Amino acid sequence: MKSFLHLWDNKPEEIESLLAEAKRLEREPLSDVLKGKVVGLLFMNPSLRTLASFQAGVAQLGGSSFVLQPGSNSWGLEFEDGAVMDGVAAEHVKEAIPVLAEYCDVLGVRCFAKGEDLSEDLVDGVMEKINVLSPRPVVNMESAADHPCQALADWKTLDDTGVPRNGKFVLSWAWHPKPLPYAVPQAALSMAAMRGMDVTVLCPPGFELPDAVMSRSWSLMDKPVRVSHNVDEAMEGAHVLYCKSWTAPSWYGNPEEEAKQRANLRNWCVSEDWFRTAEPSAKFMHCLPVRRNVKVKDEVLDGPRSVVVREAGNRLHVQKAVLSKLVEAASA
Amino acid sequence: MKSFLHLWDNKPEEIESLLAEAKRLEREPLSDVLKGKVVGLLFMNPSLRTLASFQAGVAQLGGSSFVLQPGSNSWGLEFEDGAVMDGVAAEHVKEAIPVLAEYCDVLGVRCFAKGEDLSEDLVDGVMEKINVLSPRPVVNMESAADHPCQALADWKTLDDTGVPRNGKFVLSWAWHPKPLPYAVPQAALSMAAMRGMDVTVLCPPGFELPDAVMSRSWSLMDKPVRVSHNVDEAMEGAHVLYCKSWTAPSWYGNPEEEAKQRANLRNWCVSEDWFRTAEPSAKFMHCLPVRRNVKVKDEVLDGPRSVVVREAGNRLHVQKAVLSKLVEAASA
Amino acid sequence: MKSFLHLWDNKPEEIESLLAEAKRLEREPLSDVLKGKVVGLLFMNPSLRTLASFQAGVAQLGGSSFVLQPGSNSWGLEFEDGAVMDGVAAEHVKEAIPVLAEYCDVLGVRCFAKGEDLSEDLVDGVMEKINVLSPRPVVNMESAADHPCQALADWKTLDDTGVPRNGKFVLSWAWHPKPLPYAVPQAALSMAAMRGMDVTVLCPPGFELPDAVMSRSWSLMDKPVRVSHNVDEAMEGAHVLYCKSWTAPSWYGNPEEEAKQRANLRNWCVSEDWFRTAEPSAKFMHCLPVRRNVKVKDEVLDGPRSVVVREAGNRLHVQKAVLSKLVEAASA
Repeated sequence: MKSFLHLWDNKPEEIESLLAEAKRLEREPLSDVLKGKVVGLLFMNPSLRTLASFQAGVAQLGGSSFVLQPGSNSWGLEFEDGAVMDGVAAEHVKEAIPVLAEYCDVLGVRCFAKGEDLSEDLVDGVMEKINVLSPRPVVNMESAADHPCQALADWKTLDDTGVPRNGKFVLSWAWHPKPLPYAVPQAALSMAAMRGMDVTVLCPPGFELPDAVMSRSWSLMDKPVRVSHNVDEAMEGAHVLYCKSWTAPSWYGNPEEEAKQRANLRNWCVSEDWFRTAEPSAKFMHCLPVRRNVKVKDEVLDGPRSVVVREAGNRLHVQKAVLSKLVEAASA
Repeated sequence: MKSFLHLWDNKPEEIESLLAEAKRLEREPLSDVLKGKVVGLLFMNPSLRTLASFQAGVAQLGGSSFVLQPGSNSWGLEFEDGAVMDGVAAEHVKEAIPVLAEYCDVLGVRCFAKGEDLSEDLVDGVMEKINVLSPRPVVNMESAADHPCQALADWKTLDDTGVPRNGKFVLSWAWHPKPLPYAVPQAALSMAAMRGMDVTVLCPPGFELPDAVMSRSWSLMDKPVRVSHNVDEAMEGAHVLYCKSWTAPSWYGNPEEEAKQRANLRNWCVSEDWFRTAEPSAKFMHCLPVRRNVKVKDEVLDGPRSVVVREAGNRLHVQKAVLSKLVEAASA
Repeated sequence: MKSFLHLWDNKPEEIESLLAEAKRLEREPLSDVLKGKVVGLLFMNPSLRTLASFQAGVAQLGGSSFVLQPGSNSWGLEFEDGAVMDGVAAEHVKEAIPVLAEYCDVLGVRCFAKGEDLSEDLVDGVMEKINVLSPRPVVNMESAADHPCQALADWKTLDDTGVPRNGKFVLSWAWHPKPLPYAVPQAALSMAAMRGMDVTVLCPPGFELPDAVMSRSWSLMDKPVRVSHNVDEAMEGAHVLYCKSWTAPSWYGNPEEEAKQRANLRNWCVSEDWFRTAEPSAKFMHCLPVRRNVKVKDEVLDGPRSVVVREAGNRLHVQKAVLSKLVEAASA
């Protein structure tokens, strides 16, 4: 493991090993595996959990970290090859990444989707380019098309809360005031597929996930990913409802038109009655931040089904496991 | 002591113990009482002293810290129960605080007054809510209605500079281009009351502090808090002039009208002649930042009366004492 | 050495000693020379390399650091003596600097030129004032008129890549969409002069460096600094082309007029054919960030002449040497 870009790059035994290490670190949080090491954290977009959990985790492993935010405390970055840089961006990633690699042992990167071109965002070109440019291990702290640290934390949360490996996992669309990318839906879906779960995508017509996302998850499991437009049908016997919003693929990059498609879908807000056909102990999951009473009602978030804080807590443990493995691999 | 929200929550012997520990840490700044510990610092508002002194202090105690700034490097936060979050705020404190508590051992919080509703701000509801939501100790890094770290640093400064415990303490209003909250006036006034001082509030008519602030301080001492509109009278025999600006309570939440009340009060700028009836060695205090030649003349700030840098320096020592006690209490 | 404000304040043997220590730290990056020490980093302007390399370097030396950005996470600062502060700035450096000195052992400061008054910027008054106000050592992290950490890193890069001490150094102007200050040109020119190099400034007519910059460099060497407006002539036999943009001195503080002077100079973009009369192994240097295909073509930056990443990497090593010396001197 040179870098940690996607959970699906890892073999099942590697994932099991990361989960085991995360559980161990949850019990014994302190070590010195990062003693003398520096982790650079490059945020192109805002963060609460990721910034805090990476800085805390690095410190608990005996290392130190720095945070850069291009466009805020740092220069705006250019990503295009051959660009004539007479606009806003003052620095190209071709310099920024090799330079940062001079100052750190691991580089975490957050680079959200641009939301203009569907296929460009789905191939995750910026994260890929950064990884190629970096002589140091790179950790994906959420890219255009994936959020593998979240996926691994979610996997651990499913294990922690006794959700069976072959249980039923429902990924549901929910209404949101903005068109959102596919990073978390793809991360969650592929994680559930790799975990061996029975996976259903629940969404309004027209909001099916892009083919590339569906086929990736399908390729990772031995059963088909189902699609349903009906809550009761999708939720029948479900062990987990994983809630997220995403853009309607046909109107990707066309926010005005997409907003019209979403206009009458504010009833896609998860409430307790969504669980009436589910397993009684079914869990509610969400990667956070979540807009209360927009994507999900207070009654669910404040009730016993919600494991959202546990998911966030597990971010710390799994990321520490990932950092430990990367540093070990780099020094091997 | 689970949290450090208000100085007045602490018994006299607890305050003495914090002051003694602060003095010890001033002489011997380094320890490992926070070894392996992480302190989260959540800033809803700007800071110079607080951010720097907390990060420095945590490091000197062997720990580490992270900084989050909702609305800047992090998501905008919602505080209202039951809010339908379809506006700017992407995350509710009901998630944000329990999640941050997963990543840190102590949580420092800065949340200034909204300045819209006087009684809402004076009950300090946001800080209270955050403390209830946090399973970890919370430190008030200035809230709507209090600034206890400043108050404790000011107490130590009074001790350091030989101001008698029963000396005369004058809290004076000064002109400022903006309507400011009651956090520091209340912190300073209640601190002086608890310290046993003879307390006078000096202000133009109409700028008397809100009743709730006055009665709190009055309840903490055995003599009345006096109010004066006359500099020479208020300053007679004073050992300390503590300068601050605050909103006229009757026009709280009405900045246009309030600005008119202040329009002719630019002469409320502390100068050397304000001290003509004071003790010769009387000190000038201010919590900083201070607008020079607006709230106080250069001649005072640059002269021997000013102890403003010492107050700021004491922030470091007292905060380290507070953090040490909180971590000790949490692990007891 | 109390502070590190300008490379030219240091005797040749001090510079050699810093370079030797930097080379040692490049081989053995970890030490505990900053154990228990705090380095405050005050950024009035954006940064990528400087913020990351200082935070990484401090950590590798066993210390810790904090970052303040007035106007962003911190209060806007006033610099003028006697200012009546009723505008945007909430805090004067007369308070801010002594206060920060209470919280740190070394203070790094970045304060770019205001770009309004040429002689004001060239005397570097803000950095000078901050140094006078600080009882702690100050490190210049780029001021109005100098960037000594960059200069020292460049010197090491010249040594590392075998450029002879008496080789030919060409500092060339390049087109840039904005009028830029003289900090880096003066740092590079004076560094090359102190290193004993044969120095030429290459620029379009009207873009000669200010007399004060030229005479400073001239005073540091025993040969004249040449000026040329012709690429082939200037580059003849050159070992190094150091590329930078700067304002035409006659239109300093007059950006509209200055833009007209630059309008037809977009061909001042370094390409491979600029090296046709140079030494075959001639290096391309730039302090970064650099606008690709505006100041220099991809073919140069991506080719074997470019040592820009090495220059940036050396920032880490030389700054660690500087910090080590300052802390040693302060405790001596």
